[in-house]
Amino acid sequence: MSHEYDPEKVRAEAKALLDDLTKPKGSLGRLEDYAERLAVIQGAAPPLIRRKAAFVLAGDHGVTEEGVSLYPKEVTAQMVHNFMAGGAGINVLSRACGFELFAVDAGVDADFPAWPRRGEGVARNGAPTPGFFGMKAVRGTRNLAREPALSPAEFEACLEHGRELADFAAAEGYDIVALGDMGIGNTTSAAALLVAFGFDPEAIVDRGTGIDDGALERKRRVILEAVAARGPFAAGPEGAKAIGAAFAGPELATAAGMILALKGRRIACMIDGFPITAAAALAWKIDPSVADYLFAGHLSKVKGHLPILRAMGLEPVVSLDMRLGEGTGAVIGGFVVELGAKIAGQMARFSELAVSKAVDEEKDY
Amino acid sequence: MSHEYDPEKVRAEAKALLDDLTKPKGSLGRLEDYAERLAVIQGAAPPLIRRKAAFVLAGDHGVTEEGVSLYPKEVTAQMVHNFMAGGAGINVLSRACGFELFAVDAGVDADFPAWPRRGEGVARNGAPTPGFFGMKAVRGTRNLAREPALSPAEFEACLEHGRELADFAAAEGYDIVALGDMGIGNTTSAAALLVAFGFDPEAIVDRGTGIDDGALERKRRVILEAVAARGPFAAGPEGAKAIGAAFAGPELATAAGMILALKGRRIACMIDGFPITAAAALAWKIDPSVADYLFAGHLSKVKGHLPILRAMGLEPVVSLDMRLGEGTGAVIGGFVVELGAKIAGQMARFSELAVSKAVDEEKDY
Repeated sequence: MSHEYDPEKVRAEAKALLDDLTKPKGSLGRLEDYAERLAVIQGAAPPLIRRKAAFVLAGDHGVTEEGVSLYPKEVTAQMVHNFMAGGAGINVLSRACGFELFAVDAGVDADFPAWPRRGEGVARNGAPTPGFFGMKAVRGTRNLAREPALSPAEFEACLEHGRELADFAAAEGYDIVALGDMGIGNTTSAAALLVAFGFDPEAIVDRGTGIDDGALERKRRVILEAVAARGPFAAGPEGAKAIGAAFAGPELATAAGMILALKGRRIACMIDGFPITAAAALAWKIDPSVADYLFAGHLSKVKGHLPILRAMGLEPVVSLDMRLGEGTGAVIGGFVVELGAKIAGQMARFSELAVSKAVDEEKDY
Repeated sequence: MSHEYDPEKVRAEAKALLDDLTKPKGSLGRLEDYAERLAVIQGAAPPLIRRKAAFVLAGDHGVTEEGVSLYPKEVTAQMVHNFMAGGAGINVLSRACGFELFAVDAGVDADFPAWPRRGEGVARNGAPTPGFFGMKAVRGTRNLAREPALSPAEFEACLEHGRELADFAAAEGYDIVALGDMGIGNTTSAAALLVAFGFDPEAIVDRGTGIDDGALERKRRVILEAVAARGPFAAGPEGAKAIGAAFAGPELATAAGMILALKGRRIACMIDGFPITAAAALAWKIDPSVADYLFAGHLSKVKGHLPILRAMGLEPVVSLDMRLGEGTGAVIGGFVVELGAKIAGQMARFSELAVSKAVDEEKDY
């Protein structure tokens, strides 16, 4: 991560500030870690969170032809309508956790109305209408079991769309962005990306929305055969991009592009469950320094999630057995990460108050 | 728990509602469990959270004479002033998580101004001033190492004060209350309660605010000798009350009284770290049905916390390596539990919307 400031100096300032708050040293645990990481990302202690935004990226997957999902492909477009009407899980949770919501058509195989980029009016149950980004790089991918999901040009278009979203987030003054996904078939796409990156298929391939044993075996075979057929891939950023084009859905490639383009913008990025974490791993394989501003919002119930997070050095903020996607875990985790900024910025300090420090204030355990 | 309604009927209604929300069945994991438990507590699905309150109960402990804490006893009163000025961790976190805050002098060895029950004005950094309850049952306990901490009459006075707080919460329309503690020496009091209830001392006695090996050994010896000297205790509610008088600080006895008095009032109670969980265990030993409306806000870094939660059948909502007390874990967990009510009440339903259900909608895994 390139800095115009010295990150170690900011880290030391953040630690000194946290130890001056009126509480036993370290007693706010991971909230203090979040405050410190946010300070390093922002280049100043205490960190300040002005606004937060959640982006739910939608795309379709040709691999649904192989019967790898429990839901019909049409559900992707139906759920985009549900987001725009205010009735989905992410609508409720982003509002509850203080995130402004945007839906992004990154490549759905359906046409949508000309919804505006800024939400207008109030949707279901008082939820604000999300803003909408029409960024259709493809009308769904090709079937990754038979050919590359995206052409190199389509993949690059997705990365560019992600950069536009990062520009938007920076211009609007969002200090935390949460990324979520909607795409029937995308746990197959995500697992193929990860297997191509060398993760153990046994640890990675899971049931997605809830397929049975037969479909799970079919999904596993599709992934292994596709990775064998498209490979071998070169190591390094160019090989990672080739893997992205071969297996990523447009929503995952756009998410990866956004994560890459957040670099140097002083914005923290909350990732969500298995598909968005695979997109983050794609970005991380292209540029490992992205891990500096990523936070894992939650631990999904999907079994492949934890090993990928650990590989990137991330620990999930919450673990609630969720497996919905849409960014629902990212916004809950983002709310908790923001609490770290709040304690750092708002608590009283020993140096300004008459509270006795510990008898031996240097003691720590 | 006595009901004017059939809890199993409400539970079935809640499950049916949750399965009709526009998401794969069960995909919001523990948020769905929280929605279901809240519905059963309230007697209606979906549950509705109107207002939330946090009560931080403060008391002093004569056992600090034995050198079991890293902080001087004066810190209890200093921190009450910090609460009322708006600068403590619980001020920041209760505001962030949407809880109205009340500080309770349950038995601090210091005099306080005549602060009002309803917070008036705005304290530090825009935080609202907490309300204050002067409920001094004692001016700190006697030294539990040498004699019972509270007389039977003092213990009963604490339970009665807890009942007054429950009356207040019900009258004000709080649907979730969070309990926190402030009391130098109270991890010793809490551990003694739990050892007297038969929990393994090796699993229970920990360093509190951060004492060294010598102080830890002293603390362990004080607890074991005190439990041996005051016991044996009868089984059942009367024995539990005798244990409470022997070892509980006034803030823990008042918390137990409040938990007992919440029964039948349709209010969910978030418990916090080790001391408040010991107070909850005291209430649970007096009346096991209190577990029906308890939620464990967080898992504390204090090592004895998890076995006590498990004994009461509770799973912590978040686990953030915190060990501050004051209710800080209770309000964060309470925010997450409330999300369960929000998804149940605000998401769109399949039965009213054009979203395709799973191909085989009865499939579940």
